[in-house]
Amino acid sequence: MTDTLRLGIAGLGTVGVGVVKIVRKQAALLSARTGKSIEISAVSARSRDKDRGVPLGDYAWEDDPVDLARRDDVDVFVELMGGDDGPAKAATEAALAAGKDVVTANKAMLALHGQALAEQAEAAGRALRYEAAVAGGIPVIKSLTEGLAGNEITRVMGVMNGTCNYILTRMEETGQGYNVLFDECAELGYLEADPNLDVGGIDAAHKLAILSSIAFGTQVDFDGIEIEGIQRVTLEDIGHAADMGYRIKLLGVAQRTGRGLEQRMMPCLVPAASPLGVLQGGTNMVVIEGDAVEQVVLRGPGAGEGPTASAVMGDVCDIARGLRLPVFGQPAESLEAAPAARSVLPAPHYLRMALTDKPGALAKVAAVLGEAGVSIDRMRQYAHTGDTATVIIVTHKCTRAALDTALGDMDKTGVVAEAPVVLRIENL
Amino acid sequence: MTDTLRLGIAGLGTVGVGVVKIVRKQAALLSARTGKSIEISAVSARSRDKDRGVPLGDYAWEDDPVDLARRDDVDVFVELMGGDDGPAKAATEAALAAGKDVVTANKAMLALHGQALAEQAEAAGRALRYEAAVAGGIPVIKSLTEGLAGNEITRVMGVMNGTCNYILTRMEETGQGYNVLFDECAELGYLEADPNLDVGGIDAAHKLAILSSIAFGTQVDFDGIEIEGIQRVTLEDIGHAADMGYRIKLLGVAQRTGRGLEQRMMPCLVPAASPLGVLQGGTNMVVIEGDAVEQVVLRGPGAGEGPTASAVMGDVCDIARGLRLPVFGQPAESLEAAPAARSVLPAPHYLRMALTDKPGALAKVAAVLGEAGVSIDRMRQYAHTGDTATVIIVTHKCTRAALDTALGDMDKTGVVAEAPVVLRIENL
Repeated sequence: MTDTLRLGIAGLGTVGVGVVKIVRKQAALLSARTGKSIEISAVSARSRDKDRGVPLGDYAWEDDPVDLARRDDVDVFVELMGGDDGPAKAATEAALAAGKDVVTANKAMLALHGQALAEQAEAAGRALRYEAAVAGGIPVIKSLTEGLAGNEITRVMGVMNGTCNYILTRMEETGQGYNVLFDECAELGYLEADPNLDVGGIDAAHKLAILSSIAFGTQVDFDGIEIEGIQRVTLEDIGHAADMGYRIKLLGVAQRTGRGLEQRMMPCLVPAASPLGVLQGGTNMVVIEGDAVEQVVLRGPGAGEGPTASAVMGDVCDIARGLRLPVFGQPAESLEAAPAARSVLPAPHYLRMALTDKPGALAKVAAVLGEAGVSIDRMRQYAHTGDTATVIIVTHKCTRAALDTALGDMDKTGVVAEAPVVLRIENL
Repeated sequence: MTDTLRLGIAGLGTVGVGVVKIVRKQAALLSARTGKSIEISAVSARSRDKDRGVPLGDYAWEDDPVDLARRDDVDVFVELMGGDDGPAKAATEAALAAGKDVVTANKAMLALHGQALAEQAEAAGRALRYEAAVAGGIPVIKSLTEGLAGNEITRVMGVMNGTCNYILTRMEETGQGYNVLFDECAELGYLEADPNLDVGGIDAAHKLAILSSIAFGTQVDFDGIEIEGIQRVTLEDIGHAADMGYRIKLLGVAQRTGRGLEQRMMPCLVPAASPLGVLQGGTNMVVIEGDAVEQVVLRGPGAGEGPTASAVMGDVCDIARGLRLPVFGQPAESLEAAPAARSVLPAPHYLRMALTDKPGALAKVAAVLGEAGVSIDRMRQYAHTGDTATVIIVTHKCTRAALDTALGDMDKTGVVAEAPVVLRIENL
């Protein structure tokens, strides 16, 4: 007789439905691979009556996910509701308290409450798994936590929000502006309920916070991430970047420095021909660098029913196979609270500013940069349109802190019409 | 008190030394991640006196790896000698028989004896792990076996021999011919003792056989792979391919067909701008396609001390953490002996042939192809040099079997001066 592993699934949106489909379609395969019969006992979602295109009649229904999480006939609570707090967190805590293993796709919950949840899971001796929370179908959590466990990780980078990458690549392809493509994404259903989670870089930063914790043995520190969204990137910026052999990507980077952990998620210029540069549309990519492995690059679909459900089922199969390890790869209580090192590592930067039509304006800008220790690699001024002229500056390597000092002083000169656009250049 | 996991390392070449270095350098990290102190008890290699640049005096020495494998103070036997048979296999069998877990980087041994070894390991309840056997530092075995376990895998592809990829990319970059670059690889130490393992495609085919077994739940079947090396690829072929927007790669593909499992390792034309097409030098890439995940691409260093040792240590950490699963992802006795389906899936093909200077030669070639059901997409004849003229033909989709029939008949026409070069075109 085969053992059975019984799932309780909370949340029947795209990913939940994808998980139900895999469990129904691949019963034989899952059993051959895990030695267990994987079944669904009960489900929960906001609306019971909605037709989701999969038969749910065999499964018990719970209106309240917390009740689902505590059911006696549930071994693994699969949390696919989303939201950093509220029902998702309450149900996850209830499941762990009731001795269930948990699989979740919830990056916000882990980025903000990962440490407490990991401590609870480990104290209870239960698994808390979240492959689907980062980079969709790419098995990046597993690669980092297990496959590369022999490495001191030196840097983790990634393009991990498909919507942002879709907007940026479509801007370049079609010559349409940010707002047009934002509306297109809204129509296609590519945006979160709060679109700022996507275009503001927050969703991607949630993912980066999780990767950092595993990579560096530190407590998740979402607040320590410098975050900038893609809202101010213009076609002009994309064109200038292309002229110099770069593409603009919403890039996350996490790296240990002498002063602490530097984590940033912001639009950057990356070499157009690099693996990150050639990444198109909704595809995600994570680059992991370690002292032994050098560099591993993982690429795959960052979202969608099948890919995200694939990641959830990878976790479910691990639990069925009895593979268990600490939530972030080492015991939660041993994770270090590393100080956030903001803007420590220098890099060249791209600046776009609108100068007012006054004599000596350009000289003032150059002087202010020089005083802050920021030296100019290239500068180009365009003809005036209306009252202002666009100036593009590429700096030599400097810290963002030095640049911010210069930008503060520049504001006082009165020759800059609006806040400059500043993009870091990452020569990977 | 921390538990200890004691390694016995057989083979102190590049990879063995790399493993010793990681164990020495990362003791604290490994202990934090696995909860165990990972130590080396004993080592074995051909020459005891050689200076390998790492201190070995703390470790017991065994001249015979079989003796090492049986030592009471060894928990995990780490086999890094290589060779499909002989000492590597004898010592692996001895280790499993003595109740040790085994970690190996030996693709030849697994490709040729994987089924028997897996059965032995599983009967003994021991782990037999081999992440380092395929694609160096890329955690591809783990991704396929565990991360993507919720998928029905539909296709696996890969560029998995760094030496071949180095030769092919350098031919294109430098305009130097195959023989020059073969000699360069010999000087750089990039070639196996028997270079045909590399340039003949055999080493890469060993790796493909292993991936196929995991992907499709089939017994490793190295003999079922169609193998062609890169020896006959010329600068001319690379140039013609580039003209059409392709690059030539030694590409492995494994895929289920209605008639069985198709596995091939041969030089192919792939789109120059595809992830596989842009792969340079010794880097490896594996592409995994599944019904849920769609496509995941993994890229990283295919060889070298650090990357390969990273893969070995990933396996060691898994064993230290108590993660155990069947050798090929499902019990060896449940693996199917799938028939080899050779040349079933059609594709366009590139042909280069030398036609003798006789009237009607080209017409005869075209007629023979037509009779075999092979239709021509493009054909180009170049001016005669000496007694022959080069003809390049790109066919529409056809099976290799149909093409081989045509090539057999063509030989009888007496207008083809030497065996044509045939390269499959994979439009990924």
